[in-house]
This record gives sequence, C-alpha cells and structure tokens, in this order.
Amino acid sequence: MSPFTEDELTGALRTILADDAPGLRVGPGDDGALVDFDSALEILTADLLVEDVHFTLDTTSPRDLGYKSLTVNVSDVAAMGGRPRYGLVSLAIPERIEMPWVIELYGGLRDAAARYGMAVVGGDLSRADETVISVAVTGEVAKNRAVTRSGARPGDRVVVTGSLGGAAGGLRLVQANPDEVREALGTDVGRSLLQAFARPVARVEEGETLAAAGATAMIDLSDGLAKDLHRLCRESEVAARVHLSALPVAGGLTEVEKFLGVDAVELAMEGGEDYELLATLGPEVLPRVVARITERFGTPLTEIGEIVDGSGVTAVHADGTEHPLEPKGWDHFGR
Amino acid sequence: MSPFTEDELTGALRTILADDAPGLRVGPGDDGALVDFDSALEILTADLLVEDVHFTLDTTSPRDLGYKSLTVNVSDVAAMGGRPRYGLVSLAIPERIEMPWVIELYGGLRDAAARYGMAVVGGDLSRADETVISVAVTGEVAKNRAVTRSGARPGDRVVVTGSLGGAAGGLRLVQANPDEVREALGTDVGRSLLQAFARPVARVEEGETLAAAGATAMIDLSDGLAKDLHRLCRESEVAARVHLSALPVAGGLTEVEKFLGVDAVELAMEGGEDYELLATLGPEVLPRVVARITERFGTPLTEIGEIVDGSGVTAVHADGTEHPLEPKGWDHFGR
Repeated sequence: MSPFTEDELTGALRTILADDAPGLRVGPGDDGALVDFDSALEILTADLLVEDVHFTLDTTSPRDLGYKSLTVNVSDVAAMGGRPRYGLVSLAIPERIEMPWVIELYGGLRDAAARYGMAVVGGDLSRADETVISVAVTGEVAKNRAVTRSGARPGDRVVVTGSLGGAAGGLRLVQANPDEVREALGTDVGRSLLQAFARPVARVEEGETLAAAGATAMIDLSDGLAKDLHRLCRESEVAARVHLSALPVAGGLTEVEKFLGVDAVELAMEGGEDYELLATLGPEVLPRVVARITERFGTPLTEIGEIVDGSGVTAVHADGTEHPLEPKGWDHFGR
Repeated sequence: MSPFTEDELTGALRTILADDAPGLRVGPGDDGALVDFDSALEILTADLLVEDVHFTLDTTSPRDLGYKSLTVNVSDVAAMGGRPRYGLVSLAIPERIEMPWVIELYGGLRDAAARYGMAVVGGDLSRADETVISVAVTGEVAKNRAVTRSGARPGDRVVVTGSLGGAAGGLRLVQANPDEVREALGTDVGRSLLQAFARPVARVEEGETLAAAGATAMIDLSDGLAKDLHRLCRESEVAARVHLSALPVAGGLTEVEKFLGVDAVELAMEGGEDYELLATLGPEVLPRVVARITERFGTPLTEIGEIVDGSGVTAVHADGTEHPLEPKGWDHFGR
C-alpha cells in the first residue's frame, strides 16, 4: 500500500509552489497554468507517461504512443478553452530501444501536432531503465475565455462530450487473449474501443465552443468521471448529482461487458483515459451549445447531472435511488 | 556499446519535427526554441534528469536536486540571452521515496525559482521504477536580442563565463571515500568544487549582457566545453581554436587533481555540468563586455580562443603545438 495518494501529494506541493508570481493567473492544480501573454493568456501544461504505469510496450505501438502523448496534453489545453501552440517532448529510453522505435514515436508526435495545428519545438533525450515520455505544451486563450475547474455554481448543468469508458474497454481488450477476443466477439466488435484507447481525441474545438458559450468550469477526463468530477467540485466548492442512466456509455462497451467480466457503467464512471471534456454551464445556454457542438463537430454533448450546494458527488440510479459516488479511478500513487 | 549517440538521435529527430510552424523562429536543436510572443520572443526549453544517469540519490540531497533541476533549464534560457518566466515540473518516483523527500525536492525548486525571479506553475506526478525529473521552462527575450548557436563568424573571439571543471571535480569528490577526502585534503579544500556540483549557477544576467553587447552565438556548457563548442561550431558552420593555457580552470581543481587522479585541464574541457556560458563576439566589443560583466556581476569573462573558417575545434597548447579536439564529453547514449 502506498503511503500517499496522488491528490494528497499534489495538495502538499501546491502549498509549496508560489502562486503569486507576476503575470500568473492560475497556478498548480488546474488542467494547466494560466499566465499573462500580452493580449491573451498562455496555458502551460505537462504530462508524464511512464512505461508499465501509463502504457506497456507490448500493447502500444510507438506511433500510437507518440500520438497519445501529445494528445493528452492538448486535452488539458482544450479543458481550459484554449488552442495548443507548441510542445516540448523529453524522452528517456532504455538501451534495448532501437532507433526505428524512436523515429516512429516522433512520427506519432508529428502526426498529432499536425492534427492539432501545433508544433513540437524541442525537448531532451536521456537513457533510463524504463521508457518515460514527458511532454509540455503551451496554448493560448483569449483573456475573457479561459475556463478553470473552479467556477461551477449551484444550478449549473453538468455536460460531457463524446462517450465514456471506451478507452478503458479498449485497454482491457488489448490485455485479453487476442484469439479469445476474436472468437467471442468477431473482428469488428471492439474496434471503436481499441481506437478509443490507442488514439484518443482531444476536444479542442468543443472546448473553445463551450468556453465561448459561457461554461463555468471545465476539466478533461483523464482519470475517470468519478474522480475528475470530484476534483471539479472540490475546486468549485460545490457538489454534483450524476444520473447514471444518462451517461453516454461508449458504443460496443455493453456488448463486450460479459466477455470482459466488467460493468459498462462502472468503466464509464471510473475507467479514465477518455479525454472527453466535462463542463458545467447554466441551463439557459445548454440547448444552444448542444446543438452547436453536435452540428459543427459531430460530437455528442450529453447532460449527465447538475451542480448543487454542498460537497461530494451523488450518483442517481434510474429507479431514483441515490448513493454517494466515491472518487474512485486512476491514481498513480494510491493503487 | 550503444547503437547511436545522443547527437545522432537528435539529428534524426530534427528532420522529423516541423520547423515551419507559424510563429516559430528557432525549432529543435538550440538551447531552446524561440517563438513569437507578441512584442517579444518566447524561449521554450526542457531538460530531463534521470536517477543513476544524471544523479544518484545517495550523492545528491533532494533540495539540491530540485534546485539544480530548475537551474539547468534556466541556464538554457540564459544561453539565448533571455530571462526565465515559468516552469513546469513533472516528477516520477518509485514507491520507496517518502513524502518528505518530495517536499524537499519542491523546496529546492522553489528556492531556485525565487533566485531567478520565476515561478513553477504546474507539472505532473507519476510512479516509476526510478526517479525522473522533467522540467520545462519558458523565458522571454526581446525580438532583436535572442542569441542562438548559429551566428558565430570567423574573427569572433570565444569567451566563457566563470570557471570550468568545478562541477566535474565536485562530482568526483562526492563519489570518493569521504574519510580519504578529509585526510588528503582537509575539510575546506574542495568545498567550492562540491558547491559547483551541487548548486550550479545559471548565468542569466551575464547572458543578457552578452546578448545586449552583440554576442553572435551562445551555448551553455552542460556537456563540457569540448562537446558544446563543437555543437556551436557545427550550427554556425565555422571552426574554433582554443588556447588551453587560457582556460579558467576552477579554483581547487589543481590542488585535488593528484588526489583524484585526474587532469584538471581535461576536466575543464570535458567535465560538463558547469552551466557556464560560452559565447562568441567581435573583438572590438570584447574589452567593454569583459569589464561590464566583471564589475556588475563579479563574474570573470575569459577569452579562450577564436572562431576561424572551416570545421571542428583545434586545441592550442602553451608551447604552440596544436591538436584536433575531439567532441568528447557527456553523452547519454554514446557512453
């Protein structure tokens, strides 16, 4: 058992790091930092991907890994309503890694950079016992458009882009015996889940649209809805109610739940790595935003709950019963 | 034997990464990237510190390690003539690391941030089998003041701030038996070497002054003078001649060279981790710059050679004999 959780450690470190530097609007603890950038704000964010913690070399191709490494950072920029600009990629690799693997990884980084209209402009390289990819991304957002985790108000609706649990389902399919998967499911079923795991999409345009429509708080779903909604509520000093029957469970997940021995709704709540955006906004603007995001980008935007006074998150079942939703999900330290 | 060197890998990756993105002035391959930043340029740089590659936990305190991790990035900003603004720190730690160690590390990061007038504004945390510290720093420089590695011209003088070989000497003292060190050298000797190793100084004001005075090229000495001067020459498409007798060998290094069984001049040439600035500039401005940097900051600025046509670096001995200087020094892949 680990002596501290990631959130405990993060909390301790936030008290150490200065949050009153000149030009600093939002410091540690949100999806990214916000700093003055002349006429706009700059978003600064970083994510670490560690072999056998975030990925394994036998279930992820270097090209997918490169693509995903940049995408998860872009997702943090999107969660603040911004557009990514530049990336720095630092890579530590063991001796057994060959040059072509590294080239493929950078190819994936370049693919993702092109997809999001940004550029990887530098970084560092080192030896290590295991592969570590550390990415930092800068982004830009208009001064009055930045959305943090801390602005949710009672009465706001909770919305989520796309669907949930797909990446977690894909990961479990990747880890299962391929022959058994084929036999039980056929070759087509699960393809969208595998895709969700291997090539997550950062919702940049959707985040910009939500920010422009007046989203009061936003976070990207990296560690699972349960955990990340708790974080948003804690930062906003509010509580949330989530209607489980409203959750947009990823297509294919229900079909494979028996084979995988998992609960689709549980994966949607706690699976993590979906990189969808979770946002709160006033009920008056909701219909227009749903229509705009669906029409412009072909991305579903689903209302899954509401913000209320208090603290914590309550799960509401289809039959009306309720239970407190624990902040379970991915923790690099606690489990 | 490793199948590729760091410079070979870096070279391959530079061809993959885009260098024509909007607003991008200098991409991968310099101390940092340079991007448009409204009225100024932004510097983006990243460095990775890996346990048992860049440091060992038994020879470096967490506070020194935090301090150094930020400083080596600030040094890259200084090498472009800029001032640091913000830092992102991503940390991967094994389970055996306790919370107080992490707190100390961040204390050291905060100390360094205060020293350089900047702030650590975010980052990431993860488990790993070994400790990895990944730091990215943004900095700012006026549009006409940025100095890259590529502007050195034949006739320029080669100068270096401070002294060389101190960090390498300190590392070797740290690795030696403490009792033997005390017995052979006394407690005072070597203190400046240990300090140079544990708490390197990034030459921010000196870099700004060199940039303002018209330095044509600049690089910080992270991997040793021999290697880093080769890099500067390669980027500038010129050659350099270095006068070995002019090298500002770190104080104390000559006293300990017999005890350590090392050659002081060799450590000064190839030791690495001094984080001094190596710059080139026209002979006409040299006396004024030397006076200014010495008087304002108490930092020696020493002329150690000159830029000539051609390629490669030539070492000139006190007796006038010459030999080609190999780009030996720290390589995370080649040795």
